[in-house]
Amino acid sequence: MPSDDFIVTPWNVEGDIDYEKLIKRFGTEKITPELISKIDKFTNESHYMLRRGIFFSHREFNRILDDYQKGKKFFLYTGRGPSGHTHIGHLVPWVFCKWLQDKFGVNIYFQLTDDEKFYAKQDLTLEKTYEFALENALDFIALGFKPENTKIIINTKNIKTLYPIAAQVAKKINFSNTKAVFGFENETNVGMIFYTSLQSAPCFIEDLPVLIPLGVDQDPHFRITRDIAPKIGKPKPALIHNIMIPALSGPGSKMSASSENETIYTTDSPEIVKKKINKYAFSGGQPDIEEHRKKGGNPDIDVSYQYLRIFFEQDDNKLKKIYDDYKSGNLLTGELKSILIDKINEFLKLHQEKREKAREHLDKFLLKD
Amino acid sequence: MPSDDFIVTPWNVEGDIDYEKLIKRFGTEKITPELISKIDKFTNESHYMLRRGIFFSHREFNRILDDYQKGKKFFLYTGRGPSGHTHIGHLVPWVFCKWLQDKFGVNIYFQLTDDEKFYAKQDLTLEKTYEFALENALDFIALGFKPENTKIIINTKNIKTLYPIAAQVAKKINFSNTKAVFGFENETNVGMIFYTSLQSAPCFIEDLPVLIPLGVDQDPHFRITRDIAPKIGKPKPALIHNIMIPALSGPGSKMSASSENETIYTTDSPEIVKKKINKYAFSGGQPDIEEHRKKGGNPDIDVSYQYLRIFFEQDDNKLKKIYDDYKSGNLLTGELKSILIDKINEFLKLHQEKREKAREHLDKFLLKD
Repeated sequence: MPSDDFIVTPWNVEGDIDYEKLIKRFGTEKITPELISKIDKFTNESHYMLRRGIFFSHREFNRILDDYQKGKKFFLYTGRGPSGHTHIGHLVPWVFCKWLQDKFGVNIYFQLTDDEKFYAKQDLTLEKTYEFALENALDFIALGFKPENTKIIINTKNIKTLYPIAAQVAKKINFSNTKAVFGFENETNVGMIFYTSLQSAPCFIEDLPVLIPLGVDQDPHFRITRDIAPKIGKPKPALIHNIMIPALSGPGSKMSASSENETIYTTDSPEIVKKKINKYAFSGGQPDIEEHRKKGGNPDIDVSYQYLRIFFEQDDNKLKKIYDDYKSGNLLTGELKSILIDKINEFLKLHQEKREKAREHLDKFLLKD
Repeated sequence: MPSDDFIVTPWNVEGDIDYEKLIKRFGTEKITPELISKIDKFTNESHYMLRRGIFFSHREFNRILDDYQKGKKFFLYTGRGPSGHTHIGHLVPWVFCKWLQDKFGVNIYFQLTDDEKFYAKQDLTLEKTYEFALENALDFIALGFKPENTKIIINTKNIKTLYPIAAQVAKKINFSNTKAVFGFENETNVGMIFYTSLQSAPCFIEDLPVLIPLGVDQDPHFRITRDIAPKIGKPKPALIHNIMIPALSGPGSKMSASSENETIYTTDSPEIVKKKINKYAFSGGQPDIEEHRKKGGNPDIDVSYQYLRIFFEQDDNKLKKIYDDYKSGNLLTGELKSILIDKINEFLKLHQEKREKAREHLDKFLLKD
């Protein structure tokens, strides 16, 4: 990998991602101000994740909107690979899904790919990934989804529904395709090779077009699905992509559930959050206070600022003030971190309550085959 | 393929199979008179399929018998790829299974691989293979199996039971393994590549060792399973292999459900059977009666004689008389065919009655996940 380059695949994200370049590489479309205005007409409000470029790219979101205007509904689908507890980065597309669901009044399917993580991680058992799947489901439910229009799919649990659909897809994908799209090798296990068909399956679970909000690293799966959809007489899935949420250690890293100190889990206590942010959150500030006051900090690379921008400060004016104050040197790194810590802990206090309540209702959300 | 050579894989059987060579090529063990005597001690009778070399090869059948003697049970597993109606060649291992089940008092699982045939055949839909699966199940049940100790697995129907087991296997198989064992290529679809894991799954459905009676063309699947079993803490499956049942057109062909005139289906009427045998059954006789009377026929390549030997004449003395009479020229080809036609139609009359009765009881046999 050249030093100015980056890798984005469903199982590996490396380097400092240039999202303009990634759009070209993946062949997706940029979310333009025009598209955002078009969305706003349906939703009657603008979402900060669109305004701020957290969702930055798409495939045929236009078509979904045009069809919707003509009275044709769609459904939403997103998911999570349950390799560990949920971290705050995972919530980004889920929160956006909830907003879309409320605004458009559509069903959503949430897929927990316990089999995928079992295939991908040497040390994970299927029992463990299933356990994580159930825990992750609680975080999803805690965001306010309702069982009437929300179904949670766990791959091993719902395989009876998924497999016949996946088989239609699998018959149209060959090993060469998976080599080209995922970089698979002769040593890749056959579970992984087949797996993409199962991630495609929920695209065709309703007889309607689907819109998939998701991290851009998952796009390759649906590039395959989009190629195959017409061959099996189905509409191509439309996608809307969010950026990778940086790990605490800063830009050029993806927040991953597997590296404990790099990650804020939704189950972390206020003390843990405080400690992790203060100790590990990459700072855009200067080495000492004097220099910081003089030269100012760099919010664009500061992880605490980025977390506020991506998720925790939804008020544009407040965010701008933090940006300006940090850049001018008025706001010190410790103060910025303190703002973020309070915001996270305020969010997690409520979230953790809702998460515990979700345990009682989990079963109502699980797809019945 | 050199002219003296042959191919045996689960999806392709070509050429005149030299079973001695095949044993060496596959690395299996020959069924010796000693092993047959050992089996006879348990069963108190000798099975004509063993005596006549219809079952000719095995893997660790010895171990199953030794363990059984020490009081350790096993279970049986066999199956069928439902690409069409059942033909009489399919019944060979099933009839042998029934005998083993009765003699050893063990459970049997019968797998119908509707997904496999969908992946393997361009023109077959999953709906069609499922329909054939249900039809094939009737033939199996008609052989006298009882729902108390017999479970029929249909892959797409029972995928919830199979998939978590298959996943354990799939994680340990890579694409190179499937290339080496099945000759898969980069153009092979990912359903086929994954599929062998699903054929392995029933080997581990009970916490006991398994014995699999099956056509030798299916051996490659279980070579993989046997490699993997210790890696997932399970006993290696033991196998007992039958020869390929020749098509009507004669040696060097396998009776296949897809070529209509090459095949006697269990659903064929007496007239159809008569017509097919008279018209298509490859003859070891001489061009005309005079020459036949003088030189005699060759029962070893005569399909009608082979069908009697393999399935329809279980009395060794009667079979020997037919052999000798045909070889000496006493028995004409038309007379030999007539003996076979009567035997087949006698069998099918009863079989078709039992097959129709089986419809009412089918549900009791289907595995409940």
